[in-house]
Amino acid sequence: MTAPTPVRPRPESEISHWDFEADVVIAGYGIAGVTAAIEAARAGADVLVLERTGGWGGAASLAGGFVYLGGGTATQRACGFDDSPENMKTFMTAALGPGVDEAKIEAYCDGSVEHYDWLVDCGVTFKPSFWGEPAWEPPFDDGLMYSGGENAAPFHEIATPAPRGHVPQMSGKVTGEKGGGFMLMKPLVETAEALGVRAEYDVRIETLVTDTTGRVVGVIAKRYGEEIAVRARRGVVLAMGSFAYNEEMVESFAPRLIGRPGAAIEQHDGRAILMGQALGAAVAHMDATEVAFIADPQHMVRGIMVNGRGQRYIAEDTYPGRIGQATLQQNDNQAFLIIDEAGYEEGAAATSATPFMQQLQPKWVAETVEELEADMGLPAGTLTSTVEVYNRHAAEGRDPLLGKKPEWVKPIGTPIAAIDLRGHTLGFTLGGLKTTVDSEVLHVSGEPIPGLFAAGRCTSGVCAGGYASGTSLGDGSFFGRRAGVSAARAVPVAPASGHESAPATA
Amino acid sequence: MTAPTPVRPRPESEISHWDFEADVVIAGYGIAGVTAAIEAARAGADVLVLERTGGWGGAASLAGGFVYLGGGTATQRACGFDDSPENMKTFMTAALGPGVDEAKIEAYCDGSVEHYDWLVDCGVTFKPSFWGEPAWEPPFDDGLMYSGGENAAPFHEIATPAPRGHVPQMSGKVTGEKGGGFMLMKPLVETAEALGVRAEYDVRIETLVTDTTGRVVGVIAKRYGEEIAVRARRGVVLAMGSFAYNEEMVESFAPRLIGRPGAAIEQHDGRAILMGQALGAAVAHMDATEVAFIADPQHMVRGIMVNGRGQRYIAEDTYPGRIGQATLQQNDNQAFLIIDEAGYEEGAAATSATPFMQQLQPKWVAETVEELEADMGLPAGTLTSTVEVYNRHAAEGRDPLLGKKPEWVKPIGTPIAAIDLRGHTLGFTLGGLKTTVDSEVLHVSGEPIPGLFAAGRCTSGVCAGGYASGTSLGDGSFFGRRAGVSAARAVPVAPASGHESAPATA
Repeated sequence: MTAPTPVRPRPESEISHWDFEADVVIAGYGIAGVTAAIEAARAGADVLVLERTGGWGGAASLAGGFVYLGGGTATQRACGFDDSPENMKTFMTAALGPGVDEAKIEAYCDGSVEHYDWLVDCGVTFKPSFWGEPAWEPPFDDGLMYSGGENAAPFHEIATPAPRGHVPQMSGKVTGEKGGGFMLMKPLVETAEALGVRAEYDVRIETLVTDTTGRVVGVIAKRYGEEIAVRARRGVVLAMGSFAYNEEMVESFAPRLIGRPGAAIEQHDGRAILMGQALGAAVAHMDATEVAFIADPQHMVRGIMVNGRGQRYIAEDTYPGRIGQATLQQNDNQAFLIIDEAGYEEGAAATSATPFMQQLQPKWVAETVEELEADMGLPAGTLTSTVEVYNRHAAEGRDPLLGKKPEWVKPIGTPIAAIDLRGHTLGFTLGGLKTTVDSEVLHVSGEPIPGLFAAGRCTSGVCAGGYASGTSLGDGSFFGRRAGVSAARAVPVAPASGHESAPATA
Repeated sequence: MTAPTPVRPRPESEISHWDFEADVVIAGYGIAGVTAAIEAARAGADVLVLERTGGWGGAASLAGGFVYLGGGTATQRACGFDDSPENMKTFMTAALGPGVDEAKIEAYCDGSVEHYDWLVDCGVTFKPSFWGEPAWEPPFDDGLMYSGGENAAPFHEIATPAPRGHVPQMSGKVTGEKGGGFMLMKPLVETAEALGVRAEYDVRIETLVTDTTGRVVGVIAKRYGEEIAVRARRGVVLAMGSFAYNEEMVESFAPRLIGRPGAAIEQHDGRAILMGQALGAAVAHMDATEVAFIADPQHMVRGIMVNGRGQRYIAEDTYPGRIGQATLQQNDNQAFLIIDEAGYEEGAAATSATPFMQQLQPKWVAETVEELEADMGLPAGTLTSTVEVYNRHAAEGRDPLLGKKPEWVKPIGTPIAAIDLRGHTLGFTLGGLKTTVDSEVLHVSGEPIPGLFAAGRCTSGVCAGGYASGTSLGDGSFFGRRAGVSAARAVPVAPASGHESAPATA
């Protein structure tokens, strides 16, 4: 947990000069930062965003771009899907738990249609077309997809299936130049800039500044090696991302992820969490992790996934991130895809029509299941009986064991192969600061820490342990907005000398 | 995370009167508290223990009494077992991880023989006899047993098996009056008392007191509804147990344990952790849990454990707590014991000779595996093939799938039964404050918090995720001692007025 530089709060009395000042100071210009900036500015605050890298974007810009939205968005309706906030709550509670923050799930689902409209109003475009093929994300510019296993076992029997993975439309996607995350961030940053939000880059946040009452009144940062002090008249918003790249924190909280951070950026060093903890902030679900799985869903649906004992453990047609979590957390990262030649060829053909998917080669190929089993080093009878039982029911188009949908249930023939998926997981962390539904950072005593707000992956959001693609950009943007509103509405601190900007007009 | 009463530290300047004072103030009179008290007193400190209940003991007194000790203790040697600190480290690193605190494992193993001798010197008696039958704990007064799966797959191939579960001898055990935990605590408390350690009961710790530099200089507590202030000239030791009975913390960190706390006492409300966090203390492995499993090991070894899919998932002759963890964490708390009539009768006979074991009745009994499978509602072929594959290898005395020891491998015949073990898990939490090997509480900045020490289940000890019986009383006593030494050696704070006891003689 050792921080590279001190994370203890600095007393305001030590600050002789404020280099910058604003009503609302936002640390990090990713999805949570930009949405906080927009709402704070709209609430009349003078807003300054401090970003560690040379430009806006954060992990969001590099992401596929899913935003988890539902309850009956225009895109859902245009694509012919019914949904309701209640239905969305039922799914999210089941799929993202156990232990979800019920108040957050409630606020998120009740506000989801409004949040969709807000994003669209900011210039984000969701093409009203649905991608229904197995994939990690739509390979073209379709705007809607199942992204959490809503239509797969066991959730399709718990809640009415509705796709909620909304992807911003991008023209350049088929050439691989820009992803949906970039197309989400770009209009949001433009919206923020049009509202007069200022941004300073290459500014690395070091710690918070507190007054004698414990209220957060600013931050200390490093810029080109020099320390700078930034005063926040109304509030500081932490939007600095996860701790996926803080090795010590990963070892202390999510050790199964050691050596396999991914889908996050190196700036995700957990510092916002540590800075908050240094003030007594509570944290939650620090062990939770998103787990991506380098395997082609078009292949997975056509085969059976088995663990290191040759046993099936999950419906192969569910959200691949769920397969990744089950593999890493419940099956010791041991996974093999068993697939026959016809299934492999068919999956490969489907994939070749949809660029950017991983195409893995079989490690073992055999004429019989018995041979394959022996080649893989599995005890006699294990894989054989798994395939036999699967095929017995598949002959009737059923998968009573795990509930794979009939459209993907087909007996596995020969020649048969196994793709070695051991160690093919990587991911990022989902735990972080505990916040209220208004994005106030909670002290362990239960009250908010005055002047401190947070959103995005430095907080524990709608995910407790489970995950669905789009929940990070989803809760980052949803609770980012609330962080901006809350910070802008905070009672201002008394004026200080040495500031370079005018007082807020709010 | 809401605390029932404020956990924020109180400034020393607000304290007008100190009701008690000592060099070292210890919060909690369980295993960590008593060992800290002994060592602090031996180091010359004036020691005061504050205990919330009406007497000493804590969860330790109610525990079975295993202390995890090895590396070649006198009891191990007397029973004919070889062990070494290196061998012990290898096992603990493999079985208690991933993500173990390597420095703690190292210190613990290197110091284990000395710690054993220290306990014996304090009057704790370990009868030099080994209990080798499957059990949760020795049913009689034997002093040594395998308590972590050291002699079972996969660990018996990773490290040389050595039993390390040391149980204090007790005369009353066969009548069920007193357990090993009581017989551990009693001589330790007598040792502390002989050293002049004072204790105050019915004192409920509320929060810490800090001076202007942030050093911990005392505690605020409630006694019979009145607030009292207790000054610690050298240090405060937190030894207040786990957070198993804090519902909000369990939901935030270890949600699979919701509704099933056990093997801990209601006083385990997580308050020490919150008090530390309010000072910026780091925490670790908050999701880790010990999981007890209400099932008779004598039955488990004679059958096969299957999950909700009818699949085997663990060697049935390993440490039953490991079976519990695998059931709760990796198999959604779905477990059934499949056993034939002969095995059930044999297990029941073995159990009847060894009192205090749970004897569960089969829920389903059938003449064939196919019938049993159908009765249990499992898809055709699932349980049948599991039993068939097991029996095929068992006929040769082998279990290539999970490595159950040959002595327990025997084909399962008919009549056959299933014992329903769903929901038969309960447990306590293992996460807590992050401490150094000298039991200093670490701030998230990486430095110790001056004046604050902790040990026992309010800290993250030698267990990261895995568990072995005896590691709680083991690391609680081992690092409890170090907490006492560290606190006694801390530079004293300046004298204050109003204290009722003489300055320390150290």
